Amino acid sequence: VLSTILTIGDELLIGQIINTNQAFIGERLNSIGIDVLEMVTVGDDMTVILNAFRRAWDATEAVIVTGGLGPTHDDITKKAIAEFFGTELVSDPALRRHLETVMAKRGLPWTTAAEDQTLLPRGAATFPNPVGTAAGIRMSRDGKQMFVLPGVPYEMKEMIDQSVIPFLTPLAGGAAIAHRTLRTTGIPESFLAQQLGNLDEILQGSKLAFLPSAGAVRMRITVHAPSADEARTRADQVELRIRAKVGKHIYGTGEQELEDALGALLLERKLTIAVAESCTGGLVAHRLTNVSGSSGYFERGVVTYSNPSKTDLLGVPEGLITSHGAVSKEVATAMAEGIRRAARTDIGLSTTGIAGPTGGTPEKPVGLVYVGYADASGSLAMKFTFGEGRARVKERASQAAMELVRRKLLHL
Amino acid sequence: VLSTILTIGDELLIGQIINTNQAFIGERLNSIGIDVLEMVTVGDDMTVILNAFRRAWDATEAVIVTGGLGPTHDDITKKAIAEFFGTELVSDPALRRHLETVMAKRGLPWTTAAEDQTLLPRGAATFPNPVGTAAGIRMSRDGKQMFVLPGVPYEMKEMIDQSVIPFLTPLAGGAAIAHRTLRTTGIPESFLAQQLGNLDEILQGSKLAFLPSAGAVRMRITVHAPSADEARTRADQVELRIRAKVGKHIYGTGEQELEDALGALLLERKLTIAVAESCTGGLVAHRLTNVSGSSGYFERGVVTYSNPSKTDLLGVPEGLITSHGAVSKEVATAMAEGIRRAARTDIGLSTTGIAGPTGGTPEKPVGLVYVGYADASGSLAMKFTFGEGRARVKERASQAAMELVRRKLLHL
Repeated sequence: VLSTILTIGDELLIGQIINTNQAFIGERLNSIGIDVLEMVTVGDDMTVILNAFRRAWDATEAVIVTGGLGPTHDDITKKAIAEFFGTELVSDPALRRHLETVMAKRGLPWTTAAEDQTLLPRGAATFPNPVGTAAGIRMSRDGKQMFVLPGVPYEMKEMIDQSVIPFLTPLAGGAAIAHRTLRTTGIPESFLAQQLGNLDEILQGSKLAFLPSAGAVRMRITVHAPSADEARTRADQVELRIRAKVGKHIYGTGEQELEDALGALLLERKLTIAVAESCTGGLVAHRLTNVSGSSGYFERGVVTYSNPSKTDLLGVPEGLITSHGAVSKEVATAMAEGIRRAARTDIGLSTTGIAGPTGGTPEKPVGLVYVGYADASGSLAMKFTFGEGRARVKERASQAAMELVRRKLLHL
Repeated sequence: VLSTILTIGDELLIGQIINTNQAFIGERLNSIGIDVLEMVTVGDDMTVILNAFRRAWDATEAVIVTGGLGPTHDDITKKAIAEFFGTELVSDPALRRHLETVMAKRGLPWTTAAEDQTLLPRGAATFPNPVGTAAGIRMSRDGKQMFVLPGVPYEMKEMIDQSVIPFLTPLAGGAAIAHRTLRTTGIPESFLAQQLGNLDEILQGSKLAFLPSAGAVRMRITVHAPSADEARTRADQVELRIRAKVGKHIYGTGEQELEDALGALLLERKLTIAVAESCTGGLVAHRLTNVSGSSGYFERGVVTYSNPSKTDLLGVPEGLITSHGAVSKEVATAMAEGIRRAARTDIGLSTTGIAGPTGGTPEKPVGLVYVGYADASGSLAMKFTFGEGRARVKERASQAAMELVRRKLLHL
């Protein structure tokens, strides 16, 4: 099965938005063995959209369209579908009932914009949008399929995974590609490659891609095989050989974030944690609490941005800050001990550093961060230098802080 | 002048890489008044590439191609150009000399891969690659242009700015486009459209796009005019007419985030703020501290996830939590008052709610959030219902919390 991914929106053509939808859909189609012939992006222009529909429909069996399903005037995708399939837009009673319920729940009045959202091309099948109001549309003809989804990424993603991929999987005929993603942190890509050594021996015909981001490198294994079972088995074997070389750097697999891995570990060990943040400004707490069920181990966090707050909330002596500076091994350690004591948790974790762009000195440059850790057996602090870029320093420091806890718990 | 952006590479089709080149080039073309008709992405396949060349060349006057110029085996773009223009690849002496110098400087030996990089389609003009080895190629015929660049973003960007845009600017004939983005929060897209009323009157020939994301809608104005000055003036006028209708919902323009706008306001008024978060788990503090210079107004934050932490750190009476529940108007108000008192700041801000996916009840469903606010004149709490999705509830609640402060300060 061959496919086309068609994204619609003027904002994409003028480069106001980076098109992440394409890559997401491409990855998902690829995972079930459906090749993408082309990705095409066009603006909110009827003639151009119809032309793109025609080409995609002629050349491929599955056309995935995103964008232009919203309630405002520039959204003409639905009219284009009706025109392309030679039919008309009619109000769908089921969709109308659903939308009425949603609007009532949110206490919103019924508007013409809502009315427009109940319109569907005659003959269309719909599929649900679990996180928004615009339903997905599927048109079938001559054994070919066109799926139309909203362009808002978090709505689109849910709908691809819950409806489009399950629908297309049987049509793809069980072609077997297995992907496996191993997630590492605390080690640069080039060191990871070096520690892995001879890749041919490890991969034995499979493929490996390194995907770096701030403070993390994902390794993606891709295996092609005659059957799904065999692809999985071979991916297992490659994973084992990789783990034998660099296992301690791997905190998780697939979509697992470091906070998910750490959370599972804390829950399993029945340990509680509290966090005192300076330079990360709440990001460590935010990430830890992104995990559903984190109230089972996350007791509290404090963002002690001012020096008085470090003394008030953590009992860090004023003299310690004066003599060593707020960004120091000593203060990081005292912060971790202080939050552990105040929150009465098993673990206390702290960050203090210079996120920049201002505030750096030759001795303490932007990017300098100390992470402090305290538990019943004692406390320590680690020093990091993360370079420039406020957002990046915060991201990398939060990563380093959580990874320090993970390694302490696993004695790595 | 109409253009096509064509990006080539298997890694794009399988979603291994997010295509940022397209958006960069689109933005640059747009800035000199060249419209993009389509963005097309294809794999490293000769037939598909030739087909895409043909369509782009027939439909538009400028075709920008990136990808497939590198030294590896799957890079067939150059062969495709030769084939498309009915010519052959020949070694270019100037390119060869340049490459020999570069390789010698880096102490690298001459290889067949290097030899391949000296090949150009006969009749091609080249343009320099200041940061890499693969030169850019320009083919002209019948007044149309094809530019071919490497896909590596930092090489491509330099070459677009230093060669492609300067070449195309005179051809674009000095037409001018102005963009203006107005950022709103706290109002859904459909309500915004309704409050704007008759769009034709407001726009008078300009264009408006609504770009929604969690808890925010951006409105993008696009104006085409004969001169840059006139485009700017007309954008100003459209902005004024929009502000007259929905001004209070607009917190900023361009790339400004709500935390930037709020930070500027606090700094200007010389006001300090402290935050007590429950359901947002540190996200409000994280966003506020994403702003460089935020230590000038952000004193501290606490993430009081457990009930004891609400009592310890904020002095919220245990009895209040027992009688009303941690997620209540009363507790939100007490939290805001408590953090203001503890931190001795002008403003105290709080969030408490049910981020989900678990923990909801019929009376207090997932997505229910109270935002509390306290200043010298008193305190209050507002109730919100944000629907499902843990990350989304956190995002929307953080947005609502910051927006509440902005509106209080501006008496909106």
